[in-house]
Amino acid sequence: MGRRYVHGYDPRENTRLQDQASTLVQLLHSDTTYAPGTTVLEAGCGVGAQTVTLAQNSPGARITSVDISESSLAQARDAVTAAALANVTFRRADIFDLPFEPESFDHVFVCFVLEHLAAPVGALMELKKRLKTGGSMTVIEGDHGSTYFHPDSAKAHAAIRCQVQLQKQEGGNANIGRELFPLLTKAGFDSVRVSPRMVYVDASRPELVDGFTRKTFTAMVEGVRAAALEAGLIDASDFDEGIRDLYRTTEPDGVFCYTFFKAFALKNA
Amino acid sequence: MGRRYVHGYDPRENTRLQDQASTLVQLLHSDTTYAPGTTVLEAGCGVGAQTVTLAQNSPGARITSVDISESSLAQARDAVTAAALANVTFRRADIFDLPFEPESFDHVFVCFVLEHLAAPVGALMELKKRLKTGGSMTVIEGDHGSTYFHPDSAKAHAAIRCQVQLQKQEGGNANIGRELFPLLTKAGFDSVRVSPRMVYVDASRPELVDGFTRKTFTAMVEGVRAAALEAGLIDASDFDEGIRDLYRTTEPDGVFCYTFFKAFALKNA
Repeated sequence: MGRRYVHGYDPRENTRLQDQASTLVQLLHSDTTYAPGTTVLEAGCGVGAQTVTLAQNSPGARITSVDISESSLAQARDAVTAAALANVTFRRADIFDLPFEPESFDHVFVCFVLEHLAAPVGALMELKKRLKTGGSMTVIEGDHGSTYFHPDSAKAHAAIRCQVQLQKQEGGNANIGRELFPLLTKAGFDSVRVSPRMVYVDASRPELVDGFTRKTFTAMVEGVRAAALEAGLIDASDFDEGIRDLYRTTEPDGVFCYTFFKAFALKNA
Repeated sequence: MGRRYVHGYDPRENTRLQDQASTLVQLLHSDTTYAPGTTVLEAGCGVGAQTVTLAQNSPGARITSVDISESSLAQARDAVTAAALANVTFRRADIFDLPFEPESFDHVFVCFVLEHLAAPVGALMELKKRLKTGGSMTVIEGDHGSTYFHPDSAKAHAAIRCQVQLQKQEGGNANIGRELFPLLTKAGFDSVRVSPRMVYVDASRPELVDGFTRKTFTAMVEGVRAAALEAGLIDASDFDEGIRDLYRTTEPDGVFCYTFFKAFALKNA
């Protein structure tokens, strides 16, 4: 995991991650359930935004959730406790130095993690080692380059590119969603199958206008303002206009599109 | 309908349109069936690429397909005859001067037509007049701005933008898919519901690599080369490199994404 984290660790950011999780739970998680008695490694659980859903959808599975950040883990523990879930064990660990024997898990689950890594294929190979033969790998990532909207706006795209560039400078890739097929294939997984999950938002879907366009995506881009200005990536006025144009897409005639990618793969040998 | 048509009328282009139709039939048409005895207006049928599917999926409906081009209509008639379909009537007509009484049809179907019109809301209003109260409107359009791929390529995007700009110069909008909700709303339709149909292509889906990325999308962009160079939109070498980069996405580690938008709406009053 990168030593810096583009989204930061402040409380407002954590609220955003929780909002995002609740709006998108169905879209991203409804087809992930693990059988009772199976063991699942969640790599890079962060503040537990996905952990709660994962544990709720597979109440009989034993989930081990790891993250490199002790403070994130503390929040993840609180979230799991608040949800009265007893099937999750937390452990501090680096994805590149995992404290687990080879072939320890039936399944591995990774969500919004590869986007932050300079060596995503290496990470997938490390995870594959801990997966039993015949086990499954599930990966979910976003792709900021999948964003388009109406009314269109060059400045809104420029503001989004600030986020992409900052994440790149920290070794990550905010456009990684589209690459899940080649990444999993290069890491040696079999039966790789990618399923895009497009979020389409117009005024007939007010919960997404608010929960996704406003509070998830635009809030996330807005959150890199200081870093983008400090890095000299954009003028303040252009950035602010871009953000205004993103909010403009939440008006009654606006439309916003974003796509997450979910991939399934097997370890056959 | 515009007097010029960005895709041209030559035989190779017609082959492309037929290939596109067969690859995408399921994705775009599977949820469109009209009840026996109902009347359907297909506005802008072109060479009949969608007409055959429409008529096959609703064998008991009476379909009236119109187009402004007599030569396109001749090919559409041949396609329908070859498919042994007897429920289609063809008629030459301008979408802005339709030879039908108000409230003549139970349903209207429009596919890949609004993208070529300078006044899409006006066209929708003309079609709405011919629709009975309670009747349904179905619209399908692409959106070239929804295109992204791996490996990414600025020159491939530049080549695609040539198509978008040429279509714009002719009064059309190649990025119209995302706008179906506001367009139908402005035209006075009710219960507007948009359903994006994303085409995700990687090496695990060879029929789409060939049928969509190569023969539909890249062939279409390649088809505007002469017009783009003549209009001075791009250097020949940049365009050719862009096309090579689009074909590059069809290699085993490549990925290609494009989204069509399908909208349903009602005429309540």
